[in-house]
Amino acid sequence: MDQVLDAIAFDANGLVPAIAQQHDTGEVLMMAWMNRDAVLETLATGHVCYFSRSRNRLWRKGESSGQQQRLVELRLDCDGDTVLLLVDQLGVACHTGRRDCFFRAARDGGLVEIADPLVSQDALYGHVHG
Amino acid sequence: MDQVLDAIAFDANGLVPAIAQQHDTGEVLMMAWMNRDAVLETLATGHVCYFSRSRNRLWRKGESSGQQQRLVELRLDCDGDTVLLLVDQLGVACHTGRRDCFFRAARDGGLVEIADPLVSQDALYGHVHG
Repeated sequence: MDQVLDAIAFDANGLVPAIAQQHDTGEVLMMAWMNRDAVLETLATGHVCYFSRSRNRLWRKGESSGQQQRLVELRLDCDGDTVLLLVDQLGVACHTGRRDCFFRAARDGGLVEIADPLVSQDALYGHVHG
Repeated sequence: MDQVLDAIAFDANGLVPAIAQQHDTGEVLMMAWMNRDAVLETLATGHVCYFSRSRNRLWRKGESSGQQQRLVELRLDCDGDTVLLLVDQLGVACHTGRRDCFFRAARDGGLVEIADPLVSQDALYGHVHG
């Protein structure tokens, strides 16, 4: 693992942006952040773990919602300052219940929603979004 | 444009991460940063403009290499803190001459290069990488 960790250019806060992409369809699902421990845990367990900046702790994707991401492959970019996670997303990636987070498109000078929720937030989180 | 700009949560440095994805194949090409002016210029011209943190100025993708990105659609994520750019990449996205920047994969505890350059850096930049 050292070769992988050494190649990652974590920022001043010890974080690196991580893009999650559905491995077979190519959908870009979401972007979040990882620290060193999140990378290590993800590679060790095969399930994606991020670092939540708002909660200031490791965030095992799906821990509240059940919508886990199984890691297929972790890739690094040329400068080592971005991670690409090829994953198999269970259910939906977005906390709004949509398959991916990028459901707003700039069209005709405004923003248009181009995807509907597949499940309700109540179904995902009970009544707490955590 | 105001609705789009107002929905973007620029960070403390006035920047937002932007993922470039080839619109038809789904390849994730690269990740870079945009400021407000870069978003405006990209939407106005239909060619992707980033903000270069190292050069501290607008970076019109392809200005040195000719490898431009035509914008197909700009999308925003649920929190407004990441931009997804669907683009048509002319030639290669990576300064190393590879099609995309994510050519290193974590396999068997190490890093493996999974793509070769399609063009030389000399061909892209003359003898200067800028």
